[in-house]
Amino acid sequence: MRISLLTLALLLSPALASAAPKNIIYMIGDGMGPAYLAGYRYFSDDKATAEVENTIFDELWLGMASTYPDDDTYVTDSAAGATALATGFKSYNGAISVNRQHIPLGTMMQLAKKLGKANGIVASSQVNHATPASFLAHNKSRRNYDEIADMYLDYRIDGKTVADVILGGGTKYFIRDERNLVDGFKQLGFQYTDSWQQLNTLTNAPALALLAETALPAVLNSNQDNQLATLTEKALTLLTPAKKGFVLMVEGSQIDWCGHDNDIACAMAEMDDFAKAIAVAKAYVDKHPDTLLVITADHETGGMSLGAAGEYQWLPDVIRKVKATGRSIAEQLKQADSDAAALALWAELTSINLTEAEQQSLLATRQQDETTLRKLSNQLVAKYSYTGWTTGGHTAADVAVLAYGKNAKDFIGFQDNTQIAKKLMQYIQQTK
Amino acid sequence: MRISLLTLALLLSPALASAAPKNIIYMIGDGMGPAYLAGYRYFSDDKATAEVENTIFDELWLGMASTYPDDDTYVTDSAAGATALATGFKSYNGAISVNRQHIPLGTMMQLAKKLGKANGIVASSQVNHATPASFLAHNKSRRNYDEIADMYLDYRIDGKTVADVILGGGTKYFIRDERNLVDGFKQLGFQYTDSWQQLNTLTNAPALALLAETALPAVLNSNQDNQLATLTEKALTLLTPAKKGFVLMVEGSQIDWCGHDNDIACAMAEMDDFAKAIAVAKAYVDKHPDTLLVITADHETGGMSLGAAGEYQWLPDVIRKVKATGRSIAEQLKQADSDAAALALWAELTSINLTEAEQQSLLATRQQDETTLRKLSNQLVAKYSYTGWTTGGHTAADVAVLAYGKNAKDFIGFQDNTQIAKKLMQYIQQTK
Repeated sequence: MRISLLTLALLLSPALASAAPKNIIYMIGDGMGPAYLAGYRYFSDDKATAEVENTIFDELWLGMASTYPDDDTYVTDSAAGATALATGFKSYNGAISVNRQHIPLGTMMQLAKKLGKANGIVASSQVNHATPASFLAHNKSRRNYDEIADMYLDYRIDGKTVADVILGGGTKYFIRDERNLVDGFKQLGFQYTDSWQQLNTLTNAPALALLAETALPAVLNSNQDNQLATLTEKALTLLTPAKKGFVLMVEGSQIDWCGHDNDIACAMAEMDDFAKAIAVAKAYVDKHPDTLLVITADHETGGMSLGAAGEYQWLPDVIRKVKATGRSIAEQLKQADSDAAALALWAELTSINLTEAEQQSLLATRQQDETTLRKLSNQLVAKYSYTGWTTGGHTAADVAVLAYGKNAKDFIGFQDNTQIAKKLMQYIQQTK
Repeated sequence: MRISLLTLALLLSPALASAAPKNIIYMIGDGMGPAYLAGYRYFSDDKATAEVENTIFDELWLGMASTYPDDDTYVTDSAAGATALATGFKSYNGAISVNRQHIPLGTMMQLAKKLGKANGIVASSQVNHATPASFLAHNKSRRNYDEIADMYLDYRIDGKTVADVILGGGTKYFIRDERNLVDGFKQLGFQYTDSWQQLNTLTNAPALALLAETALPAVLNSNQDNQLATLTEKALTLLTPAKKGFVLMVEGSQIDWCGHDNDIACAMAEMDDFAKAIAVAKAYVDKHPDTLLVITADHETGGMSLGAAGEYQWLPDVIRKVKATGRSIAEQLKQADSDAAALALWAELTSINLTEAEQQSLLATRQQDETTLRKLSNQLVAKYSYTGWTTGGHTAADVAVLAYGKNAKDFIGFQDNTQIAKKLMQYIQQTK
């Protein structure tokens, strides 16, 4: 059998292999350092089997990314991290897709829009929080929530609004005394709901859902199952008719917040919610092979480790039994009628048997502010599960890069976070 | 252009793509969790440039591996970790390539030997420490150092010793009052040296070098530049003539020990030594393309994070100025003639300006034991560099998998550590 060198070259050429995907689903686990993925695997482990089962993260894991911002600190915040992931350029901590001179950096959502593609964002935070904001808007500071929300309505690309689908929380910023942005969106033809029960009334893009005053409830405290998966499914349904394809960004926003609180039970619940949303996206790719799914994180939060204090074990069994976030536990303990009721509540919410000294410490701290009580509650869960934390902030850990579907192989190995955005923006250009 | 489906299938078939490599270089950074790779990148960063340069680790990074042992703890020790990496089977913490019933698990070095290939180990610890031991010997406990050393000499595979090249430390275990193993090796035709200066006298396999009583000196305290690179180069030179190829295991043993001490300056120096050894191995693959280089770790040590205590920064500049390990600093401070001399020595060895309170604490601790003083010294370096640590032991973090050369692509993505060994043993079988 003879094959010409030309034939061989063409068969193996990167250009031929990488015709750009029509649709891109880009999922960001805020604060999701690599230990969160390993932790979620052991948290999900079926102990009836000898082997540890792979999670959906493991199945799609192809690379790693550095996350450092545009200075000498090496540790990024969510705004600079999302700016890198949305524009391909690094900036300073706090920046919403602007550079050091506050000049706007074009985002992939704006590029998609410019080229006639549809786009959307889904977040479990308020939709104008740092990560989604960096995909749609520009601001010198992530803290200017109202200005960012205004831009979602006011910014125009060739006469069109910047996004077609916006799903998450944030009525507080969109329905304000001096301005009602929701009315503005409706006037532009957006379907709108603020209710999970009415989510089915969103039948076409453009569409806006604001399902909470600020962020959605923490998964561990929420009555709503599969929050992020439900919104991801809805966004995909709304974007699928787009003739030139779409770019959808989905953020598991609160993994980071659990990390800031050093609350491992909260973190594992948010990871589970994010995993279910990834399963929805993966199934979509299976049905729509002209789609690329990329999953990563903006940074690591908390310096989390599986194992602590010299012990060679990590005990997810302890974590699985915790029924509420540390914030909720602290709130409930403060409201208990008596010390006895507080201790009974602790036992019910955590199933952790405290020592006599720990019980006394918990009761004494109940007399202090809720933050101090929350910290103690989270420290006790960390202690009994052997979870380590080194900070209430972020770290410079590299983050996982997962990919599936068309062109997934382009994300193999180590890369800087800006390279992820650059590759995706190149695909968007190529399929205009 | 028409290409038959058969042609296409053959071109892309895994069997065709994965003809096994003749030589395998397998490098293990003991304790080298993913934060060590990110940390080393920022530690090595050329600040004169805007971008952070990729390290040799980044260039070769292709996947990640889980490390859990054969129980419910999820946190492995180096013996169980190395057993998985050497045999493809998980076992209990402390096991040297035996299962729970203490039945030997065949190692890849033994397999290579059985099939007529040469093999060798290089370590910066004593050569009979847990990781190299798991490649050559079997024992129910890693602590049985003498028994393990005996096995290096006594074990026979088709009448041959188990290894052709053994380079590292450990005269204490090989030259004992009741038995001199070095004499035994010499009688079997091994060339031997215990001196760096005489390393050039090792001209042919089989060869043994024991260059320290136990472990080699910590890199940060050593006068010998490029310790591991030098030994790796020597081992490759000795193994290259092997007609059927070779398997070489190289361990950066002391990354783990720095982690146990929570000594970041020590860890970065060991990472640098390991990186230089990797560069030697990579250059070898470039000259000998029928070689596969695989690099991983057995587990993470210390719960290390780049950033701590709520600060959004990690400061490798602080670490670069530290001139000795915490152990050496403590020893030197204890020996200082006066408090003033001790403070001057601290300043000289670390370049860290302590507060008045920290100086007093250092001087008070100087009156205590060396271990307490070492811990304080390492804590101060961690504090000023914003390095976080959660444990003096190991954690269940996933570890990086790097590969280069023939069949490197087989290591892309997430895998269990046993799968790495199984793939390598399959190659060894295929090239017998």
